[in-house]
Amino acid sequence: MKKNITILGAGLVGSLLSIYLAKRGHKINVYERRPDMRKEKISAGKSINLALSDRGWRGLERTGIADEIRKVAIPMYGRMIHHVNGEVNFQPYGEKDQAIWSVSRGGLNIELMNLAERNPGVKIFFDERCTGVDLENSVAKFENQLTKKNSSVESDVIFGADGAFSAARHQLQLSTDRFQYSQYYIEHGYKELNIPAAENGEWNLEKNALHIWPRGGYMLIALPNIDGSFTCTLFFPFEGGESFSKLDTKEKTIDFFTRVFPDAVPLMPTLADDFFRNPTGSLVTVRCFPWSYNDTMCLIGDAAHAIVPFFGQGMNCGFEDCTILQELMDENETDWEKLFKDFEQSRKPNSDAIAQLALENFIEMRDLVGDKKFLLRKKIEAWFHEKHPDQWLSLYSQVTFSAHIPYSVALSNGKRQDEIMKKIMEMEHIEERWNSEEVEKTMLNLLSWLA
Amino acid sequence: MKKNITILGAGLVGSLLSIYLAKRGHKINVYERRPDMRKEKISAGKSINLALSDRGWRGLERTGIADEIRKVAIPMYGRMIHHVNGEVNFQPYGEKDQAIWSVSRGGLNIELMNLAERNPGVKIFFDERCTGVDLENSVAKFENQLTKKNSSVESDVIFGADGAFSAARHQLQLSTDRFQYSQYYIEHGYKELNIPAAENGEWNLEKNALHIWPRGGYMLIALPNIDGSFTCTLFFPFEGGESFSKLDTKEKTIDFFTRVFPDAVPLMPTLADDFFRNPTGSLVTVRCFPWSYNDTMCLIGDAAHAIVPFFGQGMNCGFEDCTILQELMDENETDWEKLFKDFEQSRKPNSDAIAQLALENFIEMRDLVGDKKFLLRKKIEAWFHEKHPDQWLSLYSQVTFSAHIPYSVALSNGKRQDEIMKKIMEMEHIEERWNSEEVEKTMLNLLSWLA
Repeated sequence: MKKNITILGAGLVGSLLSIYLAKRGHKINVYERRPDMRKEKISAGKSINLALSDRGWRGLERTGIADEIRKVAIPMYGRMIHHVNGEVNFQPYGEKDQAIWSVSRGGLNIELMNLAERNPGVKIFFDERCTGVDLENSVAKFENQLTKKNSSVESDVIFGADGAFSAARHQLQLSTDRFQYSQYYIEHGYKELNIPAAENGEWNLEKNALHIWPRGGYMLIALPNIDGSFTCTLFFPFEGGESFSKLDTKEKTIDFFTRVFPDAVPLMPTLADDFFRNPTGSLVTVRCFPWSYNDTMCLIGDAAHAIVPFFGQGMNCGFEDCTILQELMDENETDWEKLFKDFEQSRKPNSDAIAQLALENFIEMRDLVGDKKFLLRKKIEAWFHEKHPDQWLSLYSQVTFSAHIPYSVALSNGKRQDEIMKKIMEMEHIEERWNSEEVEKTMLNLLSWLA
Repeated sequence: MKKNITILGAGLVGSLLSIYLAKRGHKINVYERRPDMRKEKISAGKSINLALSDRGWRGLERTGIADEIRKVAIPMYGRMIHHVNGEVNFQPYGEKDQAIWSVSRGGLNIELMNLAERNPGVKIFFDERCTGVDLENSVAKFENQLTKKNSSVESDVIFGADGAFSAARHQLQLSTDRFQYSQYYIEHGYKELNIPAAENGEWNLEKNALHIWPRGGYMLIALPNIDGSFTCTLFFPFEGGESFSKLDTKEKTIDFFTRVFPDAVPLMPTLADDFFRNPTGSLVTVRCFPWSYNDTMCLIGDAAHAIVPFFGQGMNCGFEDCTILQELMDENETDWEKLFKDFEQSRKPNSDAIAQLALENFIEMRDLVGDKKFLLRKKIEAWFHEKHPDQWLSLYSQVTFSAHIPYSVALSNGKRQDEIMKKIMEMEHIEERWNSEEVEKTMLNLLSWLA
């Protein structure tokens, strides 16, 4: 019953998966392309801070390190919107005590790797790039990035947790008849920037919020770190009128930021240097199917379903993959081909749903959150939710503050809510009577009609 | 101004393109992976007959061989629907004299290759598999399939006309940052079957029609050949209740055909042999972008946009690619980078549109054409078109019997027509008053509202 398992990738999902599998008594070797980040401090200048929410916490809680992580995570209770004229306003994410949690990707990954290696059954090998997989015989091939030596590793099962540009998935694509595959890049790239801590070590902006400078076609965001700094990310078109291609000198860059993000610039002393030192990342959505090959290999996390970061669900979805796989193993520990088939059948509609929601939420973040009509809609939804909590839970809360509503159900609920709210917003003088009995009745009626 | 041009692929589009380019004075070498079909009779048992329609004819007319082709093509003026109970009924495609033309893929390809080679500037090399392209330097690499010798060919420009599994496109995917790519396989495969000519050399079914046996989830079709035979194609799910996976013996296959295609079976003496000798083909839609690399390479035809065959537009769309490229060259014969950019910008929305229409038309062909409501809708459309020819042209006619309405315009017109007809079909007692003044007025009203 106990298997020799190879995991490709010691990222967040690969590390968490190794802990889960080790608890079940399996022997696990994890192969990671990059160096051990615990030994060498490497920053590619490409990190987008993570926001842990309920699905992610649920995945971590099974490992017993959730409390430890919570100590170094910062709760963000809402969005802080920064307008061009300097005005700011705060939009809570959910109920008063509900938050998403800013954590350092590197820090969380290190904790998970340390925890994994405390299991005698888990070994992690670094600098090992996967060059191919013999799927029939479950043999993974590697090239060591330091010695350039090639090696082959035979095991019972391989998990591909090797991210958006997965070598495991590429092998599956080559070996599977009628493999469904799409890679879709949005027109925006991203750039990591920085707001350092104040001299007293405190935060230069409200600490317990996710800051957004929405500007219609693009946006800047900032998430707090425990050292008092903020990691900022500019999401910006590659090409066009206002785009990365146009900001080709430090002067133009500073001018642009001063014009569109005036309250952020004074907090960013290294802006121009950061801008030209850090690479411009691209943002891809990858969809594929199947995720598995017989009983020998299965994809998990970004390797199976890379998504854009705008719903803050990439890691959360990957951790939920581990939770669901774990639950399926509780029911079936012998037939791994069936296990993988059940897993991909269960997860595919949900990963497709969150992929779509993440793309749609970019428009909300960069544009709508600064829009008065949109804010009124949110206000009506919150008011109605308070009156009828069993009848209305915002899409954001369904995705973020639930670990039990499948993403695909949240998506279809959200579409229904869109239809209802479209009709409500078309009501005459809705601005004045948004919290009237008539609006309440209309919403209840629409809910029952569209049930 | 005159270029050395390499074309990958001597299929229908590659051959036609070579003729176009030779007329402009360029020197063209065409490299084809397969053997010369004029020397060796090879049938893979995978052909789906072609239906030439207006866009295809327009592409051919510029070469001067349209009349020659028309002599060996058979006009099909409508669909002949075969019901399970043996009833047949005929549905015209358009006006009385409008037809799509059944031609042999091999025959047409041979004509085009012969015509191409009559130009002193065109050479075709066979058995040369493209193994890669150096895009920066416009060097294509080949492996000869007979001698296994490798060679490199440098030229000014490379066209990738190498089909749905294009090596040129794969190279572009590897070399282009943020390459958009998707391959989507439908759940159905296809199988080539045969209805031979009668003993007197005549056709065993109505010659001037495209025969369809629509059965909801699947269908059989038959297209006439000039030798009196019909090439049949079964479109059928790979897996599931009624599927290729279930028909695993000759007995089961004959039983199944006898049950669901009772009037076809007596005409198919080699049914069981054909079924087990011919391979099961898969059906893929490929979408990608960009199609070009600087001024050195450009994709065309299936290599840029493989589609499913259900609107009969694969070749027609590829020939239209050649027509449009030609027109762009008339305006700009010097800046090839701009030429390629203009070409891909012009064609991408149209190839996306026909890809979608082709997928949607499968449902019409296999299911709706046997449906009474659908036939009534078609009857109303035809009646209204006759009264108001300037206001209503069926989607089918826009795609098939026009060489000037872009596919993307046809798609959006079609969606508008769907909306209108949905409302018309919901009118009470529409069956009785389908040709009433009230229906006419309602349609005119809806047309002006939805303009």
